[in-house]
Amino acid sequence: MSNHQSPPARHRVVVIGSGFGGLFATKALRRADVDITVIDRTTHHLFQPLLYQVATGILSEGEIAPSTRMILKDQANAAVRLGDVTTIDLTERTVTSEHLGQTTVTGYDSLIVSAGAQQSYFGNDHFAEHAPGMKTIDDALELRGRILGAFEQAEVTTDPQERARLLTFVVVGAGPTGVEMAGQIAELAHRTLVGAYSNFDPRDARIVLLDAASAVLPPFGDNLGSEAAETLEKLGVEVRLGASVTDVDAGGLTVRDADGTEHRIESVCKVWSAGVAASPLGRRLAEQSGADIDRAGRVAVDEDLTLPGNPNVFVVGDMMSRDRLPGVAQVAIQGGRYAAKQIAAEVTAAAKGRPVPERTPFRYRDKGSMATICRFNAVAEIGGLEVTGFLAWIMWLAVHVVYVVGFRSRLATLLSWAWTFLGTWRGQLTNTHQQITARNAIAQLHYLERRIEDTEADVARAS
Amino acid sequence: MSNHQSPPARHRVVVIGSGFGGLFATKALRRADVDITVIDRTTHHLFQPLLYQVATGILSEGEIAPSTRMILKDQANAAVRLGDVTTIDLTERTVTSEHLGQTTVTGYDSLIVSAGAQQSYFGNDHFAEHAPGMKTIDDALELRGRILGAFEQAEVTTDPQERARLLTFVVVGAGPTGVEMAGQIAELAHRTLVGAYSNFDPRDARIVLLDAASAVLPPFGDNLGSEAAETLEKLGVEVRLGASVTDVDAGGLTVRDADGTEHRIESVCKVWSAGVAASPLGRRLAEQSGADIDRAGRVAVDEDLTLPGNPNVFVVGDMMSRDRLPGVAQVAIQGGRYAAKQIAAEVTAAAKGRPVPERTPFRYRDKGSMATICRFNAVAEIGGLEVTGFLAWIMWLAVHVVYVVGFRSRLATLLSWAWTFLGTWRGQLTNTHQQITARNAIAQLHYLERRIEDTEADVARAS
Repeated sequence: MSNHQSPPARHRVVVIGSGFGGLFATKALRRADVDITVIDRTTHHLFQPLLYQVATGILSEGEIAPSTRMILKDQANAAVRLGDVTTIDLTERTVTSEHLGQTTVTGYDSLIVSAGAQQSYFGNDHFAEHAPGMKTIDDALELRGRILGAFEQAEVTTDPQERARLLTFVVVGAGPTGVEMAGQIAELAHRTLVGAYSNFDPRDARIVLLDAASAVLPPFGDNLGSEAAETLEKLGVEVRLGASVTDVDAGGLTVRDADGTEHRIESVCKVWSAGVAASPLGRRLAEQSGADIDRAGRVAVDEDLTLPGNPNVFVVGDMMSRDRLPGVAQVAIQGGRYAAKQIAAEVTAAAKGRPVPERTPFRYRDKGSMATICRFNAVAEIGGLEVTGFLAWIMWLAVHVVYVVGFRSRLATLLSWAWTFLGTWRGQLTNTHQQITARNAIAQLHYLERRIEDTEADVARAS
Repeated sequence: MSNHQSPPARHRVVVIGSGFGGLFATKALRRADVDITVIDRTTHHLFQPLLYQVATGILSEGEIAPSTRMILKDQANAAVRLGDVTTIDLTERTVTSEHLGQTTVTGYDSLIVSAGAQQSYFGNDHFAEHAPGMKTIDDALELRGRILGAFEQAEVTTDPQERARLLTFVVVGAGPTGVEMAGQIAELAHRTLVGAYSNFDPRDARIVLLDAASAVLPPFGDNLGSEAAETLEKLGVEVRLGASVTDVDAGGLTVRDADGTEHRIESVCKVWSAGVAASPLGRRLAEQSGADIDRAGRVAVDEDLTLPGNPNVFVVGDMMSRDRLPGVAQVAIQGGRYAAKQIAAEVTAAAKGRPVPERTPFRYRDKGSMATICRFNAVAEIGGLEVTGFLAWIMWLAVHVVYVVGFRSRLATLLSWAWTFLGTWRGQLTNTHQQITARNAIAQLHYLERRIEDTEADVARAS
């Protein structure tokens, strides 16, 4: 009889990241006899596939980024901790995180690493100042400010060349995000904003979608790719394939075509959606475990999604490299749920004194891919079936309404979509001074602080 | 017969400001034979009385700040220009505005100045860094970040004293905005966030409402003021009257009580809603016209709301001083409509060759005042009638839903309110790194730039 012993400490699960992988793993563990700590540097769960709708004024940031703490507040076994993970120690089984100078060390028995990916500029990080990416709410709000700001400046300027530069929008990268951004900027210019300016016609705006690859939406296959390219061109988007960006500055970008010729596109507002790099935590996990890492910084995991030699450390979502799975929400969700299932089964077995069950390898079930091009028009690939146009768009809408995780705001979101798609109104065209200038002000601040130190050292030497 | 003459140039109306005064004046002129230019430094019409709901996560910024350009896009005689008005020249009849280094001079025949008011720190502008005001969308988003950020930091810290400081929220100023802010922070702490943190109970948060005056909501009269104070205290808000703030820093504030004793309140998150100062344009108008100006910088106007000696220059809303009218939306709306009516009547008379009609003096029709304290609870004064509790709250809701100007989003707004008031969910708790750090980063940048210039001058001298 063990009635009078003190209860054993509960199995501790640490989840790094509150994106699709982390959140769905945490929810899948809600009935498990474990204590979960979710650590993330943001306080929200970001529904990343809809970021472009925040950037183009369709949805508000709250609708696609519900508070992780609010989502999990009724889940008694889960705690949320705001912090930037600096170290994972596989030997000590601890995760160290920082928040405003406060360091916290959290011990784990099982670890689920799902820290996702960030924008990659392929070694040209200085492009970021002039062509923000689309990975965070800050990015989307800043792009909203830049896009609408370009139209506002075009209204004020009296120089036709400057106006043309302001009315040229360039989206780099023709994956789903790039296609959706280019389509929505075209809808803004050709539909929403018509009649709103006095000194120019927004329909004169030029929207360019560039990609170094030779197809739009490569993972969707040739048919859907050319269908999407055609729809974009009908919308007024200039699609340029086989075009690599070699430089970006405040006033435009330089492009090298497939035949090697370089030319410049004058454009104030640029959007970068060309590449991703896995969270730098991937590299640190690889160094400690000897796991392989691919060019995008993703960690090669075993068939149960764990780090080689560390069966208690799962890597899921965009950080994980296995079977050439793409960096999409479904891979993260299924990976997170798989990891949760293994942990729950093993904790239950241990509690009942049963042998630990052997893990069946992770199998990804492809539910298809979708991308919207404009209202009422999408492309979708489901189980080998290719769907385009209005039907694909309705499927896209249904799937996204069901998945938008701020459950209680689903109907309000649907309603605000209905207004936006049926009319020409957009409810979220607000942008503020801080949203537009913040990123550059913060970056410049770091730069100036270093310059002051240098200059003061000069003064000290000189005197 | 004048059929073959070229048409005379249309009467030009310039409207400075897109708040209640400016927007309602512009809309009232929609059928007038005039050309209107609305100049504002923001691109939105701000529904200022609901800013506190953006700051506390109930509404998104887009719901209370629809794009001015979109509101007016079907009004053929109105143009919108983004710009900061730097000069009004009453002799030349021109308005000069700047936008990103581009200067524009706009001529007018009639001018409506409705540039509103900004937060006043009564000469202590350095308080602003530590206690943001509530006048712009930027302010509200920053306060949202600071309020939620304080709870997040309280979860991370291990120092009980620091946690108490983080969980103390001080609202300075017990007018409608201060009362509403204090009430909503209390609702966040005592209702919305309950269960969301692991290391403390948000119900332990301390919410202090301070005012140097001896009553809450002074313009509402003694009865409603004490009713509001009582409701706030039941909600858990500490109401301190006769208490002046003498200093504010990052960690707290110093307060002098009515008996002259000073004491300190340790608090990380402070909100300033204590005073307003009219737009500095008021002073410049007064200098040119010899008009009087009051302590808050408001311009004393004639009985037709025009500047003495300038019957074609109307000053309306929070910038205007006349009959001790309060700085509320209704005064601005009625003033804007009055100005529009005079202009339209005179333009019509001139076109028909009739004598210009004499102006009847502006008469304000008091439609009452309202302030919400928490959900289902408000105080209202309508035509001498005092209403409190649920009934007042329903009246408040009805009036605000009707007035929220982003017409097409009214139902969506109502729906999102319904969710928020009936449940414990709030859809707009998102905050981003930039929202929280932008204001200080931008301010610090200006400071560092000046310091670098000084230091480099030192280096030049030393070498």
